Amino acid sequence: MIKKLFNLFLKHYLEIPQKEAKIVSLGGGTGLSTLLSGLKNYFQDITAIVTMADEGGSTGRLRRTLGVPAVGDLRNSLSALSQSEPAMQKLLHYRFGGDRYGDDQALGGHNLGNLILVALADIYGDFNKGLEAASKILNISGKVLPSTAANVRIWAETDDGQRVVGEENIDLGKYDGRRSIKKLHLLPKNAKGFPPSIKAISQAGVITAGPGDLYTSIMPNLLIEDIKVAIAKAKAKKILIVNIANKPFETPKYKASQYLEAIKNHCGGILFDTVIVNNNFQPKIPKNLDYQFVEIDRKNLKKNRNLTIIEADVINFKNPLHHDPEKLAREIVRLI
Amino acid sequence: MIKKLFNLFLKHYLEIPQKEAKIVSLGGGTGLSTLLSGLKNYFQDITAIVTMADEGGSTGRLRRTLGVPAVGDLRNSLSALSQSEPAMQKLLHYRFGGDRYGDDQALGGHNLGNLILVALADIYGDFNKGLEAASKILNISGKVLPSTAANVRIWAETDDGQRVVGEENIDLGKYDGRRSIKKLHLLPKNAKGFPPSIKAISQAGVITAGPGDLYTSIMPNLLIEDIKVAIAKAKAKKILIVNIANKPFETPKYKASQYLEAIKNHCGGILFDTVIVNNNFQPKIPKNLDYQFVEIDRKNLKKNRNLTIIEADVINFKNPLHHDPEKLAREIVRLI
Repeated sequence: MIKKLFNLFLKHYLEIPQKEAKIVSLGGGTGLSTLLSGLKNYFQDITAIVTMADEGGSTGRLRRTLGVPAVGDLRNSLSALSQSEPAMQKLLHYRFGGDRYGDDQALGGHNLGNLILVALADIYGDFNKGLEAASKILNISGKVLPSTAANVRIWAETDDGQRVVGEENIDLGKYDGRRSIKKLHLLPKNAKGFPPSIKAISQAGVITAGPGDLYTSIMPNLLIEDIKVAIAKAKAKKILIVNIANKPFETPKYKASQYLEAIKNHCGGILFDTVIVNNNFQPKIPKNLDYQFVEIDRKNLKKNRNLTIIEADVINFKNPLHHDPEKLAREIVRLI
Repeated sequence: MIKKLFNLFLKHYLEIPQKEAKIVSLGGGTGLSTLLSGLKNYFQDITAIVTMADEGGSTGRLRRTLGVPAVGDLRNSLSALSQSEPAMQKLLHYRFGGDRYGDDQALGGHNLGNLILVALADIYGDFNKGLEAASKILNISGKVLPSTAANVRIWAETDDGQRVVGEENIDLGKYDGRRSIKKLHLLPKNAKGFPPSIKAISQAGVITAGPGDLYTSIMPNLLIEDIKVAIAKAKAKKILIVNIANKPFETPKYKASQYLEAIKNHCGGILFDTVIVNNNFQPKIPKNLDYQFVEIDRKNLKKNRNLTIIEADVINFKNPLHHDPEKLAREIVRLI
């Protein structure tokens, strides 16, 4: 409540204008939706470009059994940008509980928002038309697009030469968390970018990637050749938002520069001209979690010439593994 | 299109006013939603009171496996009164197809609108609060209420003394369509009316029942003792809308007066002061259907003293088993 009033105050009395720049945000999962929920207070023209490599939970089951695209991350982004009734938002996130479902166990674990996207795709005869219909129902401020219309998966090569196939296996470190990822690959490797996504990138004034899992949320977008090329060619300000903390299975003890290094190794260049890194390490990460804050290794970061490094307090005090949507959005506004 | 323009013409140029009377419509299934979709163009204060005895299809499965109330008829009424996006309406009626669902067969046959009502009930911790949330999401003009909050079923005594239990068995004539229903019973027989429904009936200016299946949609409401008493006591105009055609399993060759007779036998009185019966028998019922038009047996009807008999063309030319929502609504408007 107080936060809402504060934002209202900022917007209406100090007249911080809604930025007119077209902003395009790439990513997936919680990271992307955290960012979007902050951006929507400042930007009028937001396009979320969402990884389609997700294979976990309800999304994975729907992909395997119905052959539909990965819906979960799209749903999260739609929800973040939605201006609909709170009840509608709750519906979107509702998950049918496991135990209550007796004979209808197959409902258990499914996310209702995912089922809604699947139904709309069937009703409109086309996944992307279904997505447009969802945007209308949810009163979206902006657009949510898949990075590709192809049925993509990812696989990882580990440092010791193992091959780990599938987003869920990589994400949850099922293969053995102590092995680290050497290189990530797309399947099929020549998957095409979704044309409206490519177009949005080309016309963007600001492009962001992250926060989010480097290999399972961000990189699956950047590995799509024409997405990567479109980012490289775009005249936009290009901002990489480095995670607050490292996920033990994915980016174990990565320092800030290693995020850029990983992008360079996979894309032939760092693609971004600005990084935002968190510099507030006061909140405590719960001891039962094997996460560490991402360290700012300035010397290594500065090896990237022409890179603007923004060190800022962007941490969420209530959840110190994540960004604060409002703080993060304000840093981005300040940059343009 | 032409019909819409005609209605616009009626409303705005001839200035047929929106009726301010509180109208309460009891029933279930297609009949009730047909009526409501017509009424919403004329009445501002509509309450649908919906049978909770439905056990067919997706609704029946959800009742049996999750122990939730009968959601299907509520969903139909919500949809009929909804002023939301067309996409939202389509979603509400979407049914997961049987064949496509591979491992997730339990999704097959389920209606998404039903799943939405089940989810909202769980989210809000109470079925009726979930229903209120659904009304907000769907932008309902009016209210949709269950006739009872009890977990009710119906059973029928046939003319030859058999006992047929469950709405679906009665409705589909699974017990053997040649037997006819002598008496319908409620289980539990002392189920209480839902208090807001009783209140709505008491405050109504107009009460309607039907159209719809006499024994499986209309009667389950009237068998609830305090609903019946509330109708009897109400100072409203009370209109019974007799079906256009007889369903072979339920009301075989019933004449109009037999609809009233059945209510009298079950409720100790005919409850209604006006009947609307269709008098246009020009459209042809498809030959493959074993339905017949309901005959107007004036002599028998007139035995009910003080009963106003309205004979009118209320048939739907496109679907001659059903009422035309617009024609039916206009007959009701004319009566008040």
